[in-house]
Amino acid sequence: MEADKNESRGKVGSQALPAGQDKVDSVPHTPCTILESLPKSVKRRVNALKQLQVQCAHIEAKFYEEVHELERKYATLYQPLFDKRRDVVTGTVEPTDEECEWHSDREEEEELSEELKKKACVEEAKEEGAPEEDPKGIPEFWLTIFRSVDMLSDMLQEHDEPILKHLQDIKVKFSEPGQPMSFTLEFHFEPNSYFTNTVLTKVYKMKSEPDQADPFSFEGPEIVDCEGCEINWNKGKDVTVKTIKKKQKHKGRGTVRTITKQVPNDSFFNFFKPIKVSSDGEMDEDSEFTLAADFEIGHFFRERVVPRAVLYFTGEALEDDESFEEEEVEEGEEEDHGEDGDEDDEGEFDPKVSLNLQYLNFKMPYNSIW
Amino acid sequence: MEADKNESRGKVGSQALPAGQDKVDSVPHTPCTILESLPKSVKRRVNALKQLQVQCAHIEAKFYEEVHELERKYATLYQPLFDKRRDVVTGTVEPTDEECEWHSDREEEEELSEELKKKACVEEAKEEGAPEEDPKGIPEFWLTIFRSVDMLSDMLQEHDEPILKHLQDIKVKFSEPGQPMSFTLEFHFEPNSYFTNTVLTKVYKMKSEPDQADPFSFEGPEIVDCEGCEINWNKGKDVTVKTIKKKQKHKGRGTVRTITKQVPNDSFFNFFKPIKVSSDGEMDEDSEFTLAADFEIGHFFRERVVPRAVLYFTGEALEDDESFEEEEVEEGEEEDHGEDGDEDDEGEFDPKVSLNLQYLNFKMPYNSIW
Repeated sequence: MEADKNESRGKVGSQALPAGQDKVDSVPHTPCTILESLPKSVKRRVNALKQLQVQCAHIEAKFYEEVHELERKYATLYQPLFDKRRDVVTGTVEPTDEECEWHSDREEEEELSEELKKKACVEEAKEEGAPEEDPKGIPEFWLTIFRSVDMLSDMLQEHDEPILKHLQDIKVKFSEPGQPMSFTLEFHFEPNSYFTNTVLTKVYKMKSEPDQADPFSFEGPEIVDCEGCEINWNKGKDVTVKTIKKKQKHKGRGTVRTITKQVPNDSFFNFFKPIKVSSDGEMDEDSEFTLAADFEIGHFFRERVVPRAVLYFTGEALEDDESFEEEEVEEGEEEDHGEDGDEDDEGEFDPKVSLNLQYLNFKMPYNSIW
Repeated sequence: MEADKNESRGKVGSQALPAGQDKVDSVPHTPCTILESLPKSVKRRVNALKQLQVQCAHIEAKFYEEVHELERKYATLYQPLFDKRRDVVTGTVEPTDEECEWHSDREEEEELSEELKKKACVEEAKEEGAPEEDPKGIPEFWLTIFRSVDMLSDMLQEHDEPILKHLQDIKVKFSEPGQPMSFTLEFHFEPNSYFTNTVLTKVYKMKSEPDQADPFSFEGPEIVDCEGCEINWNKGKDVTVKTIKKKQKHKGRGTVRTITKQVPNDSFFNFFKPIKVSSDGEMDEDSEFTLAADFEIGHFFRERVVPRAVLYFTGEALEDDESFEEEEVEEGEEEDHGEDGDEDDEGEFDPKVSLNLQYLNFKMPYNSIW
C-alpha cells in the first residue's frame, strides 16, 4: 500500500506539467480533439449533453446524501452488537456457552494437527511467561489490532503500547441529519495514569456536492478536513514530546551549562494533533502528504477496523486483504501445468468468478482487482 | 488496466499454493497465530465476537439491499435526463440555445489558441472529407465512445463499426423489488440491415448475502452470473462468425474439392453470446478469465459509460481517469525545485487534498489513490 503510493507519486512526477506548457510561444501542437473537429451544430448539441450531465452530478450528490442517511440508520442497528463486543473485550460481560460456539471448516481440517500446534504454542508461551489462566475479557484487544495492521503499526511506537492497553473501544459516530456531513472516531479509554481524557476524538469533515468549477469530477463524498482533540497528559506522561538535553557554552565566560528542550516525538497520539487544511495556500507538500495519509487512516478506521475489529485481531481480515488476488489464480496456474487436469478438480472446484461491486465503485484505472 | 490485470495474475502465480501444502507429511511449521496462543477462556470470548461479526455481515447485506433500492429510485430520477440525451443524440430533439450554453474556464484560457487549432482541424477534416454542415443529432456518438474507451475498443473490430453506428442508446435497468438482484444493459438500435432486433440485452445477476461457509468474506453485492441474448442476424450479416474455405483432397481418387466452414470471429457482438457460470466444475480457466473480464465490462457500462456517456465522448472522463494520480504531484514536484516557491503559487494554489470515499469503499490493498 505504502509502496504503491510512493510509486505512483514518483511515476507521474515527470508528467506533472501539462503537455505544451514549456513551449508557450510556439504554435500549439495539441491534436484535434473530437470536439474541435465537429461541425458547429453538433458541438452545440454536445454542450446540451454537458448541461444534462451537470444536472446528473447534482442528482448524484443527493443520492450520496441518502446513502449517508442509510449509513446513519444502519449504525444504530450495528451499535448493540458493537456494545456487546466492547463488553466482552473489557470483561464486563461473560458470554454464554451458546454465544461462544464456533466451528469453522478450517478448524475441522486442522483439528488433527491442532494438538501438535498447541503443544508448540504452549511451549512458546511458557518461554515468554505462561498466560494467566483466566485474564479479564480479551486483554490487549485493540493494541493487537494496532500491531497487526500495517497502516496502524507504522504509527505505533513502543511508548504508545502501554497506553493503548487501556483502549477499550473505538466508535464511529455520524453527523446528525441537517448538519454538515462528517464522521467522528471516538477512542474510549479506561482510567489510566497517562491522561485524564476518557475519550479522544477525531472528526472527519466531508463534502458531498459537485464543485461548481468542475462538476464532472464529482464522484461522491470526499473527506476534506479533520480535527483532532487536546489530550490532557499527566505530568511527564506526554509521549508526543521528548525532552532533550543540550549543552550551551557561554561565549564570554567559556562556562558550559546544560539546558533541556522539548521537541516533537513520534507517536500514534500525534493522530489527535491538529493538521489544518489550509485554504490560503500556506500548506507545504509535507503537510499535504501527511493530511492525505491521515484521511486514509481515518477512512480505514471507519470502514474496516471498527466494523470488523475481531477479524483484524485474529488476522482473518489481514489474510483476506492480502490473498484476494490469489484466489482466481490458484486454479488457473495449477491447471496450466497439467492441461487435462480438469477432471481431477471436479467436485473440489469452487467457481470463484464473481465481481464484487464495492471494489469497482470508483474511477477504474486506480483499482484493478485482478 | 489490462496490464495491471495480467501483472497481478503473474505476480501471485508462484504463491498460489498455500504455504506448507507441498510438505504434507512433515510436522506443521505454521507459526502460532494470536488465537492459538490465547488461554482457553479468552479464545472462547473471541468466538463470541466472531458470532457477533456474522450478525454484522447479515445486517450489512440488508444495508446493500437498501442501497440497491436507492439506486433504483435514483435511476428513475436520472431517466428523463438520459432520455433527453438520447433525443439529442438521435436528432429527434434540437436543444434550445439556452440548453446549449457552455463556457468552461478551460475554453476561456484556450480561446486565443482556439482559432489556430480550428484552422488545423478544419484542414485535417478536409483531408478526410469535410464534415457535412449539419448532420442529424450527434453522429457516431456511441461508436466514438467505444473507440475511445480502452476496455471497449479492445473488443471492437472493424466490421463492428458500421453496425454500432446504428446504436442509439444504452440503458441500465435494475431488477424490481422482491426479485433477485440484477441489472440489465439494453442496447437500443435503430432499424438496420444487420439484424432484426431493436434491443440487445445483457443481464447481470447479483448476490448480496454472506456466504454461509465464509460469512466474513462478504463485502457487498457481487456479480455472479450473466445472460446475453440471441441476435437475429440477417442472412450473411453475422459478424460473429466467418466463413473459411478449405481444400479437401479425396484419398482414393486424388480429386480436390473446396468446402466452406463457419468458424467463430472476433466481434464486440460476442458480448451477447452465452458464457455460463458453471456450477459443476466444468469451466476451464479461459472461460473463467473471459467471465471475469465480462463482469468487469458489464459493471463499467453500468457505473461509468451509461451515467456519463458525454464525458467519454468528449474525452473528459478519460482524462479524469488517467490524470487523477497526477493532480497531487503537480504542486509537490514543482515546489521541490524551488523551495521558496510557495509565495509565487499563492492564489493559484488549489489544495487538492481530499479523500474520495468511493475510491476506498472496498478492501484496501487493491486500491491506492496516491
